[in-house]
Amino acid sequence: MVSTEQPEASCRYSFLDDQSGGAHPALLKALVAANSTQETGYGRDRYSESARQRIRRHLGCDDCGIFFVPTGTSANAISIAACLRPHEAVIAATSGHIIARETGAIELSGHKIIHVAPQNGKVTPKAIQRAIDDHWHFPHMAKPRLVYISNATEIGTVYTKEELTAIKHICEENGLLLFMDGARIGTALMSKVNNNMTLQDILALTDIFWIGGTKNGALLGEAVVVKDLRIASEFEFYIKQHGSLIANSRVIGTQFAELFRDNLYFDLALKANLFAETLSAGISGAGFPVLATTETNSIFAVLPWDVIKKLQEHFVFYIWENRGEKEAVVRFLTTWATDDTQLERLVGLLKSAS
Amino acid sequence: MVSTEQPEASCRYSFLDDQSGGAHPALLKALVAANSTQETGYGRDRYSESARQRIRRHLGCDDCGIFFVPTGTSANAISIAACLRPHEAVIAATSGHIIARETGAIELSGHKIIHVAPQNGKVTPKAIQRAIDDHWHFPHMAKPRLVYISNATEIGTVYTKEELTAIKHICEENGLLLFMDGARIGTALMSKVNNNMTLQDILALTDIFWIGGTKNGALLGEAVVVKDLRIASEFEFYIKQHGSLIANSRVIGTQFAELFRDNLYFDLALKANLFAETLSAGISGAGFPVLATTETNSIFAVLPWDVIKKLQEHFVFYIWENRGEKEAVVRFLTTWATDDTQLERLVGLLKSAS
Amino acid sequence: MVSTEQPEASCRYSFLDDQSGGAHPALLKALVAANSTQETGYGRDRYSESARQRIRRHLGCDDCGIFFVPTGTSANAISIAACLRPHEAVIAATSGHIIARETGAIELSGHKIIHVAPQNGKVTPKAIQRAIDDHWHFPHMAKPRLVYISNATEIGTVYTKEELTAIKHICEENGLLLFMDGARIGTALMSKVNNNMTLQDILALTDIFWIGGTKNGALLGEAVVVKDLRIASEFEFYIKQHGSLIANSRVIGTQFAELFRDNLYFDLALKANLFAETLSAGISGAGFPVLATTETNSIFAVLPWDVIKKLQEHFVFYIWENRGEKEAVVRFLTTWATDDTQLERLVGLLKSAS
Amino acid sequence: MVSTEQPEASCRYSFLDDQSGGAHPALLKALVAANSTQETGYGRDRYSESARQRIRRHLGCDDCGIFFVPTGTSANAISIAACLRPHEAVIAATSGHIIARETGAIELSGHKIIHVAPQNGKVTPKAIQRAIDDHWHFPHMAKPRLVYISNATEIGTVYTKEELTAIKHICEENGLLLFMDGARIGTALMSKVNNNMTLQDILALTDIFWIGGTKNGALLGEAVVVKDLRIASEFEFYIKQHGSLIANSRVIGTQFAELFRDNLYFDLALKANLFAETLSAGISGAGFPVLATTETNSIFAVLPWDVIKKLQEHFVFYIWENRGEKEAVVRFLTTWATDDTQLERLVGLLKSAS
Repeated sequence: MVSTEQPEASCRYSFLDDQSGGAHPALLKALVAANSTQETGYGRDRYSESARQRIRRHLGCDDCGIFFVPTGTSANAISIAACLRPHEAVIAATSGHIIARETGAIELSGHKIIHVAPQNGKVTPKAIQRAIDDHWHFPHMAKPRLVYISNATEIGTVYTKEELTAIKHICEENGLLLFMDGARIGTALMSKVNNNMTLQDILALTDIFWIGGTKNGALLGEAVVVKDLRIASEFEFYIKQHGSLIANSRVIGTQFAELFRDNLYFDLALKANLFAETLSAGISGAGFPVLATTETNSIFAVLPWDVIKKLQEHFVFYIWENRGEKEAVVRFLTTWATDDTQLERLVGLLKSAS
Repeated sequence: MVSTEQPEASCRYSFLDDQSGGAHPALLKALVAANSTQETGYGRDRYSESARQRIRRHLGCDDCGIFFVPTGTSANAISIAACLRPHEAVIAATSGHIIARETGAIELSGHKIIHVAPQNGKVTPKAIQRAIDDHWHFPHMAKPRLVYISNATEIGTVYTKEELTAIKHICEENGLLLFMDGARIGTALMSKVNNNMTLQDILALTDIFWIGGTKNGALLGEAVVVKDLRIASEFEFYIKQHGSLIANSRVIGTQFAELFRDNLYFDLALKANLFAETLSAGISGAGFPVLATTETNSIFAVLPWDVIKKLQEHFVFYIWENRGEKEAVVRFLTTWATDDTQLERLVGLLKSAS
Repeated sequence: MVSTEQPEASCRYSFLDDQSGGAHPALLKALVAANSTQETGYGRDRYSESARQRIRRHLGCDDCGIFFVPTGTSANAISIAACLRPHEAVIAATSGHIIARETGAIELSGHKIIHVAPQNGKVTPKAIQRAIDDHWHFPHMAKPRLVYISNATEIGTVYTKEELTAIKHICEENGLLLFMDGARIGTALMSKVNNNMTLQDILALTDIFWIGGTKNGALLGEAVVVKDLRIASEFEFYIKQHGSLIANSRVIGTQFAELFRDNLYFDLALKANLFAETLSAGISGAGFPVLATTETNSIFAVLPWDVIKKLQEHFVFYIWENRGEKEAVVRFLTTWATDDTQLERLVGLLKSAS
Repeated sequence: MVSTEQPEASCRYSFLDDQSGGAHPALLKALVAANSTQETGYGRDRYSESARQRIRRHLGCDDCGIFFVPTGTSANAISIAACLRPHEAVIAATSGHIIARETGAIELSGHKIIHVAPQNGKVTPKAIQRAIDDHWHFPHMAKPRLVYISNATEIGTVYTKEELTAIKHICEENGLLLFMDGARIGTALMSKVNNNMTLQDILALTDIFWIGGTKNGALLGEAVVVKDLRIASEFEFYIKQHGSLIANSRVIGTQFAELFRDNLYFDLALKANLFAETLSAGISGAGFPVLATTETNSIFAVLPWDVIKKLQEHFVFYIWENRGEKEAVVRFLTTWATDDTQLERLVGLLKSAS
């Protein structure tokens, strides 16, 4: 069928993505334990309800809508479809997942995406202002109505509270909703480098956002948090219309109930960040440049092609940017499940290659 | 949020749907066993590949495309979007799931659904012919291009080989594709009452169909079987665009690999049918009319309201059709996981009430 | 290309549709007179503004939104897209234009159409109630949100004020919008048989409706009347997004300005009805059954095939329903431009054939 | 309602757009002359047929499909919907009309638009190659399938035969269709500065393109030319589904029949270009910079704000780019109908202001 960059299953260890490992054992255990009962479905099971309660407790919010969907793309497409009318447009960074890697899922509901150039992976108030200024010629232009950001971003950077506040401010001034893709919200909130926010801050400073399970210990599933109760009241229609309403919904509910029982969600993200810190230091220590500071669990390194070839015999990772015959930028992702022996082996190989 | 018919979680035993129980233990076990390895994702993991090979073996087909999606609605919407152009229409029975219970998921891709009246829950060649005859006024009318059927149907009836052959024949004569929704294909193929087909017959007599996991032992997931290799070659784009491409795809792959390792998929369906047979006989034996023959795992009974109220103290089931002050038609669904003690208790209550 | 029922251009006189004649001369004259000036476009020209003012005067409404679009299909599709969210459904009669003859234009925006059986071509409160009752299983079912009716209907019947009031009442009770397709609103309001409404009544009793120009004297164009000012404020975005915003908008504006300068719009419709009355009486007088009463400009007659064949040598008309080898139902449409000599000739032929 | 940049109708003379004048008198005359006959509709009238024959004669092509639609946005949206499947993407310049000024009409059919940076308003083979190179990660990325270009471009530049050949070449090598928006194809083909192509070359070097009537003498209408006969055979379905199938199609057919009877279409475009040449020279002569060479009927000049204010007392034109407190770039458009007295007056004012 369609070719992809995915490697053949092999004995090579993968730093390719956040989900190549299995689920966290506690989540699987919860899923197994939940198997013997009868449950109502479509999000009405007791585990999903419990997961919602626990997430609300973390959010400090009694009544916000919380909805589970299977994938990040469904979280983005459904959230945008539920918030916007078809002629309303989304403002997003050119590097944004909805522009670069979702095969037109947003466009499928009719929405134009207005491209803005990111700075260090992030959307800036200035870029938003310019997009607003450029889109005045109504009704010939789609109407900007929502700003899409990811935290952490596609390159692993993190928004500070000040940055997010400034974005929220310009959104409010211009009647724009603020939507955060939280595929990696865990590592963002656990960043030791650049984060000064909590989940409660995110709730306060956005209109709608989601908490990614897929990339942080779950088998599948994302939790969309909807503040506007009118949008929440119709949200399930959109989930269903987009084919994303899981019948036996405990399969996601049990996992999120476990992730948010105490602090497991954040503990896992912290682990991923710490592995990244170690790997980043190892790469630098071996004498290879690491692009910018490693803020979360993505490490971007500039490596010569011969080193890359050598690493590829043992490891799987992403060639981020081909820089000609001599070198390339590669991306390593660490997770809560990263094997530290493998990490050491990777650093060892780099040291011996330098 | 939105209200639904779903009962409160309670100690009442449910005959409401096919998925209120958990997964079959063998599937869960396979999922747990698969958790320790790294796998590529998005359908490229070894478990999904193994599941595809095993399903192909059951189908007797080396090269047909097999794709896993999370829900029945996604299976229907994606299959139709992948096979049709937006102005092409689907012919379906008014009772069909895509008309009655999918919130416009098919329409979201622009497709009109032409309604035809079912006979005993089934689409007939005559009804298809009439739909074709009525849709001649091009380009003012959408162009009929695909016939959607479910097997078993929404009321639990089963297509015979002769019926399906006749439908296929009229489809071929008129340039229509034939698509089978197989949410309950297992109980259909295991029907002792009215089935004379195998999975291989289904493959031969349709253009595209899917094998339901959600309603037959899996936590989630359906397997779409695509014969046309050109459609198969682009199918993943549609899965992705519709937000249904699961990253950690082993969550479905392991389950289907287990269901089709040997005959578990069919064994489970047969169990569901046998429980239905017992329940149907019990209802009749208690003196209450069962509508038509029970062909699969749905039983429709006509019960007085006072009996219904009494049953509802202990059981959850679906009020299918309100027939006024005196009585109603109710639906019971059995599954592989039906508790026979509960089934006996239900029959006992009916007997004592009659 | 695509085949259609349309006859070859010939010397046969046509009673096939409402628009095979040209525009009314007064409209053409206005269009020619407007040609020498520069005008702003996209609905902002002085002629469109004048047309809006005149229509508002007829409506007795100072502030309702009035928007010109090129076709009936665009009027229907844009109005529904502007009023509904994608998961919201339209209730319509199975005979309704949006179900039968618009190639999925409504579905293109994601909307499901719920089919109800018409009575004498009309949607009834009872049918609406039943559709509401059947669509309760949220979010698995699309949410009924708008009732679509045509006046006159597809078979030329007319809603009375009492009927429309009853429909409006059930809509209001159930949170449904009422939308009237007014492709033939002129002949409906001029019906001597069954009409007791004015344009002002239509405004009062619907939420959104349109006044058809195409079928009543204009070269092209329909005027959509939008009461809800919030919907009106965004309506042009939908027109543009659907490709229906005419740059040199005077082409429609001049024609509607002329139609509503005084009573021309209604005079033309009355003429069409009077021709229909004459033809209907002629057919009956010749001894052939006319189906039901002729209320507007459609006449349905039951004719033997040999008579039909004879008529077809001289006239073009629509075979509405094939009733086997002996006879068929045919439809004749009259317009303000019908040639009374041709009408007499048609009646003469019928008389000589009976 | 929605605000626009359109000026109030006034006695100021407009150089704002290509369609603020009326239709060319010969077209109006043809429309009036055609009014007395009965015609079949929906593109089947004799005038549309005649227009198609005449355009085919100019194209030197007996069998290509030719379809009339009311607006440029409908021409673009319908052409793209008819050629692509929903997950297939369009490559376009960021300045392209479909990105900048069509309110999401392309996205309404699900298509992603991949943005590339233009050079002198034009898409380059290099930019196309880069877009192809960047979109390899299937099925996570939409599949590039069509390149959209405008000739003349949004800034009035013209593709040479060599440039178009190079684009066609890269398209063919990569399985991409080439689509030309010909809103201003007349002025492009009549450019004395940079054109070396004929309409026949355009046909040979593209897969689908359209000939704009709206901006070159017609009241409304564009003619889409479809080479691929399979796409042509279904094209009318798309026109209808998008609400753009005009019932009384002679309204467009008569105008195109007249434009292509002989060379009127090209004569009008040439006139527009000559007026532009004169105006461009006048501006330069008055000492104000004209941006780049004026290739067609758009003139971009850099003027001080005080001069702009003065001109605005008498003329309407477009502020293209605000360059701060001192000056701005303004755009003047000339047409076949430009009044040379007004043009002289404009130049005179500039001279006296310099």
